Amino acid sequence: MPGALLFKFTISMWTEKDNQLQRSFKFKNFSEAFAFMTRVALLAEQQDHHPNWSNVWDTVNIRLSTHSAGDIVTEKDRNLAKAIDQLY
Amino acid sequence: MPGALLFKFTISMWTEKDNQLQRSFKFKNFSEAFAFMTRVALLAEQQDHHPNWSNVWDTVNIRLSTHSAGDIVTEKDRNLAKAIDQLY
Amino acid sequence: MPGALLFKFTISMWTEKDNQLQRSFKFKNFSEAFAFMTRVALLAEQQDHHPNWSNVWDTVNIRLSTHSAGDIVTEKDRNLAKAIDQLY
Amino acid sequence: MPGALLFKFTISMWTEKDNQLQRSFKFKNFSEAFAFMTRVALLAEQQDHHPNWSNVWDTVNIRLSTHSAGDIVTEKDRNLAKAIDQLY
Repeated sequence: MPGALLFKFTISMWTEKDNQLQRSFKFKNFSEAFAFMTRVALLAEQQDHHPNWSNVWDTVNIRLSTHSAGDIVTEKDRNLAKAIDQLY
Repeated sequence: MPGALLFKFTISMWTEKDNQLQRSFKFKNFSEAFAFMTRVALLAEQQDHHPNWSNVWDTVNIRLSTHSAGDIVTEKDRNLAKAIDQLY
Repeated sequence: MPGALLFKFTISMWTEKDNQLQRSFKFKNFSEAFAFMTRVALLAEQQDHHPNWSNVWDTVNIRLSTHSAGDIVTEKDRNLAKAIDQLY
Repeated sequence: MPGALLFKFTISMWTEKDNQLQRSFKFKNFSEAFAFMTRVALLAEQQDHHPNWSNVWDTVNIRLSTHSAGDIVTEKDRNLAKAIDQLY
């Protein structure tokens, strides 16, 4: 069933580790990677929830946790993660 | 012949008017439009050639001419136009 | 009185013309201008209110009006204008 | 002598560690930090030399090394570092 497959696939994108939601994103080059970062920045300001993230050339690594909740994964992180996925 | 068709299509994208290469770009929303603008900004700095451009929500209008050549269309504009097309 | 002076100065920055709040911003170069645009983009998404703006090299022109109110100047525009002023 | 003092200060900004030039930059908030990142991105594309960098809220950490030279610090890194310093 394609629906179930897609669901499973989406679930596996982010991993929860060390009390953080983590995902790596790959692009064609720096320009594409930084354009994606710009869109994530817009989301982050909109949701007033900001990532811990890094970039090297074509790769963007994002880690999400909620500082005000004691640096654990909360609904805020899941919402931002979902919104980020829709950009990719 | 698909090649000829594509060629014709590409030609019609930019129009030369008032000594400027002009093209309008449409996106899904502001976030997508501004990510595109960020990539054009990266190109512009790389080529040291900058657009006269405007944005409203999902639309970006770009006009290119070469100031140092007396505000006419030159090879610099055609090169930047070509590079911008590859982003879209 | 410095307070009154400052008030007068701030008022004169934006002009209301053709049912739009308008202001021009000048920078040292394109990079500085585009960094400012990025910050305005973050504000715009945050406030869900977007400018009609243009850029050439070191200059950014911003026009604000409220489409949903019939393209006139509303409180939304004044709020965004105030937030933009704090970036400059 | 102010000149000597300034020199000493500037030298201490970047540290060379693990074959990387490293420096941390602090800002008022995320918006200011991301605008700085946008300017660094413009420099990186211009110089075709890209950082290994990370951001959390108001802090940007940059590490520079030259991959094509075997991941050591080269003139490319010192040039990019100097250009980044001029933005800050």
